Amino acid sequence: MAYWEKVNSISDLKSLSVSELESYAAEVREHIIDTVQKNGGHLASNLGSVELTLALHYVFDMPKDKIVWDVGHQSYTHKIVTGRRDDFDTIRKEDGISGFPKPSENECDSFISGHSSTSLSAALGLARARDLTGDNYNVIGVIGDGAMTGGMAYEAINDIGESREKLIIILNDNKMSISPNVGAFSTYLARLRLSKPYAKFKLNLKRGVEALPFFGDKLVDIFEHTRDNLKSIILSDKLFENFGIKYYGPFDGHNIGNMIELLRQIKSEKRPVLVHLITNKGNGYEIAESDSEKFHGVNPSEEQKSFSFSADCGNILCSLAEKDERIVAVTAAMKCGTGLDKFFGTYPSRSFDVAIAEQHAVTMAAGMAKGGLKPYFAVYSSFLQRGIDQIIHDVCIDNLPVTFLIDRAGAVGADGVTHQGVFDLSYLNMIPNISIFAPKDGKELEEILKFSLTFDAPLAIRYPKSYSKRFETHEPISLGKWEILHKSDNKKYIIATGNRMLDLAMSIPDVNVVNAKWIKPLDTEFLKSICNDGTILLTLEDNVLQGGFGQSVLAFVSSLKRDIAVKTLGYKKFVEDMSVSAAMKNAGLSVENIKKVLNT
Amino acid sequence: MAYWEKVNSISDLKSLSVSELESYAAEVREHIIDTVQKNGGHLASNLGSVELTLALHYVFDMPKDKIVWDVGHQSYTHKIVTGRRDDFDTIRKEDGISGFPKPSENECDSFISGHSSTSLSAALGLARARDLTGDNYNVIGVIGDGAMTGGMAYEAINDIGESREKLIIILNDNKMSISPNVGAFSTYLARLRLSKPYAKFKLNLKRGVEALPFFGDKLVDIFEHTRDNLKSIILSDKLFENFGIKYYGPFDGHNIGNMIELLRQIKSEKRPVLVHLITNKGNGYEIAESDSEKFHGVNPSEEQKSFSFSADCGNILCSLAEKDERIVAVTAAMKCGTGLDKFFGTYPSRSFDVAIAEQHAVTMAAGMAKGGLKPYFAVYSSFLQRGIDQIIHDVCIDNLPVTFLIDRAGAVGADGVTHQGVFDLSYLNMIPNISIFAPKDGKELEEILKFSLTFDAPLAIRYPKSYSKRFETHEPISLGKWEILHKSDNKKYIIATGNRMLDLAMSIPDVNVVNAKWIKPLDTEFLKSICNDGTILLTLEDNVLQGGFGQSVLAFVSSLKRDIAVKTLGYKKFVEDMSVSAAMKNAGLSVENIKKVLNT
Repeated sequence: MAYWEKVNSISDLKSLSVSELESYAAEVREHIIDTVQKNGGHLASNLGSVELTLALHYVFDMPKDKIVWDVGHQSYTHKIVTGRRDDFDTIRKEDGISGFPKPSENECDSFISGHSSTSLSAALGLARARDLTGDNYNVIGVIGDGAMTGGMAYEAINDIGESREKLIIILNDNKMSISPNVGAFSTYLARLRLSKPYAKFKLNLKRGVEALPFFGDKLVDIFEHTRDNLKSIILSDKLFENFGIKYYGPFDGHNIGNMIELLRQIKSEKRPVLVHLITNKGNGYEIAESDSEKFHGVNPSEEQKSFSFSADCGNILCSLAEKDERIVAVTAAMKCGTGLDKFFGTYPSRSFDVAIAEQHAVTMAAGMAKGGLKPYFAVYSSFLQRGIDQIIHDVCIDNLPVTFLIDRAGAVGADGVTHQGVFDLSYLNMIPNISIFAPKDGKELEEILKFSLTFDAPLAIRYPKSYSKRFETHEPISLGKWEILHKSDNKKYIIATGNRMLDLAMSIPDVNVVNAKWIKPLDTEFLKSICNDGTILLTLEDNVLQGGFGQSVLAFVSSLKRDIAVKTLGYKKFVEDMSVSAAMKNAGLSVENIKKVLNT
Repeated sequence: MAYWEKVNSISDLKSLSVSELESYAAEVREHIIDTVQKNGGHLASNLGSVELTLALHYVFDMPKDKIVWDVGHQSYTHKIVTGRRDDFDTIRKEDGISGFPKPSENECDSFISGHSSTSLSAALGLARARDLTGDNYNVIGVIGDGAMTGGMAYEAINDIGESREKLIIILNDNKMSISPNVGAFSTYLARLRLSKPYAKFKLNLKRGVEALPFFGDKLVDIFEHTRDNLKSIILSDKLFENFGIKYYGPFDGHNIGNMIELLRQIKSEKRPVLVHLITNKGNGYEIAESDSEKFHGVNPSEEQKSFSFSADCGNILCSLAEKDERIVAVTAAMKCGTGLDKFFGTYPSRSFDVAIAEQHAVTMAAGMAKGGLKPYFAVYSSFLQRGIDQIIHDVCIDNLPVTFLIDRAGAVGADGVTHQGVFDLSYLNMIPNISIFAPKDGKELEEILKFSLTFDAPLAIRYPKSYSKRFETHEPISLGKWEILHKSDNKKYIIATGNRMLDLAMSIPDVNVVNAKWIKPLDTEFLKSICNDGTILLTLEDNVLQGGFGQSVLAFVSSLKRDIAVKTLGYKKFVEDMSVSAAMKNAGLSVENIKKVLNT
């Protein structure tokens, strides 16, 4: 580990030779594998981007130059070489460094990331700011082929091409997003990839030519010229050129020497360019490379204990689909994460992975519902933020029976602030016509999914990844009806929504615990009855307070004009904590604080 | 008007000859011009699509076949020929027909529309439902070149190309969206358009060839074959073909005979096809054609009386920009609608129209802010629903100073349910770090814009299109400070946000009226003071109640444990009304109802 010890900054990195960089890359790779196995995190994407990150930092000068990492789950090498080597073993841990680029953590993290397909927009904004403020740094957006399927990336490319802004796009083409890539764009890239040997030959030839004394530069010019003509015939890669973006590639994204040479060349380009690099997700780690979807996000073993809502969801949907042919499943590149892999295997013709395209997913599902199917769109809470307009406009105004299976709802732990699922109760609550349900366990998830088959309107079912225990009692599902999970003679009521909040509530002694499985509509009859009876009512939710469950309850109870105190607990700000337990504790969602609130 | 009287259904239409259709088209055009001048509405886009609509209905069979109209502001001819001729003069009026496709209005309106770039997703959903349910109708998505700049359309095309689903895309290329089109895609289309004479020739030749006895069909086959080869050389229109979608075009979108022939041919295609039609926005109406942005949405004269927030906003921003070079303006294809045209004219290098791309606009603005600029993104409330994820993820987590100028906030009147700006207070309220302001008039808008220059955090300023009067008093702006506009000895308080609600409140006698210019943060000191003093507190907002202003106030007041009644008024469901006054009245935002609420 000679170089690992030696390199702790970009200037250290720049002092290495290309062959030393190659050795260093191997050491970085080992450290990433070790750390991810301990801390969890994104293994495959980080292993795929070691060399391209080193080449970028070798050629460009951070933090003056700006690199915007799309999604950001490939930024571990970047973190290591920008002064965070010694903190690297704290990644994704409470008080440790983030698993994603975070400007507040380090000035070399030029822009926040976490969600897909944002880098090119942010990069263009930075480039425009550079020009208008008279500055002269380089802006580089690094985007994967998966992220290129998001509409936002296309919107940015449309603007970039027209703008002629000096800007470098690195297309890190690892031939898959989180799941193997889907969509026509991916087929298009596959065609481009076939010409890889050509691109390699070209660069090697050029290197040879450059080395010739006196003639080198001129020959390079001639070669460049010929290459452009040749390329347009051989590759017919007009897609990017049609958008006004100069295309270079494809090149081997693991050949550091080649990349450095290439980046040095294009650094002087005055217009937008795209460099197409072919990488292997999981490169250098056999298991990750062969099954990189599984190794996309790796969890350390201690988080694997509880039951999985995602897996339950997939299993239940499979068994319902056997009897009901209307059922179809939709995912936006999260087939495995949402537990739909079994469904996709069992019912391929009724399974639709639309790529990283939540907007399209929602409206496409609305079209399916309109055409007589029962679509289930399984999606992470945080990513569904991309589809809010479509939920309002295409699903809810016409009251179409699309069911949203909202996974990773509530605090998410180590993925951090960009991935928290703490807004869905608010953004869904505001939309008329949609109902919202949170199951307390897998059995209740099964019940609500059965219920959904006969429910002819928009429905959202939200749950975290996992749950710790199965409850014994399960009252039948009826729209807007809650259930009492624990009775007490005490006149205090905890109304909790979702399994985490119920677990918490059940550990508070001497209090009535209500399972508010329906967030919308509220169980207004029940609320009326306890308002006559109770002295205090406390709501618990795994969501921001503003616009969420508690405020709904408060608004209703307030309209009754009864003398009962209503308290609400939930999140009040962005959740920065790296574990669910810390997030809950810091928001006052703890036994201790609840006891305090109930007694004041 | 011989044909206008004769045609009131699709079967009437199908009984006409092609030359009769041409005469009918002229009559339809006249009716549209007359009606839009009276009722307001979208003139240019509807005049551009008369012939293509007639051709589609001539060849396909609605409602069995499904046509999905993107945006829907080109659907007047469709409405006229699908049984709504006699109601056409009620369009955009209370209890009249909608200006956009509305499934609840007519079974030939296959899918709701209003927002841009949704048609292809909905069409693909319908096509998939057709296949899985064993049905066999045709699905046609009609999308403009402007809507093609929206990322959602790209997401759909990516999925459509891969799916190989039988589906027809009509690209209605009128060379502009609402504003003249921007972006690289538009430049690409312009290049395709150059080949127009070729496409015309081809079709005419074919017509001639078909007419030959015995040889006709065979020659057509040969011609078709040759054409494909020829085309790929001449047009190099690989963009759509790269995405797996067969491309036909470009053709004259005003030549009914040609289009009918073409559509009959491609009806039998088993895979996705795109037909590229060139049309003139405003065709047949000189003024509209030459200034079609102005005639995009036409308002009848009676709505023009009051002052315009949009115009004020543009003027103020222009004058501030003179002294502050950091100021840049961003629009998503709504330069004129948001009043930014003057700014764009005065400061072209600081003006950015990103096309119909709200997601990109938000994050690009975030990049600009990060790079040291002061970006102002002017956007309609309803369209900003597309950028919520980006506001959360790219602007607010890192607390970047992007200012959102949210026009058309609150009820919007005749544009109807899809365009209502009644969610922004809720979706912004839930997001940490952003502040929200509603000016009572142009002067207060000026004050908050001045304030924004030194405010180093996300800020949303929301207002409707127009306001009826200027107020006399204007207290200086201070973060989270409200002002009393009318004092009364009565212990009743109306806390109203925005000019419409204040106008309403000011006409209630004997009550204190508070201008809650800040929706977030609340003026908690003020609320505390009136809680000690008041007996009843009523909030008024031009937004849905759920998650909005009133619930914020209620939550805060409830935490004070004072004996004051809090009432909230706002919208409770989708606003279907076609006028602002009807919308407000139906939501109880009327003098009569407010008096009632204050007295109970």
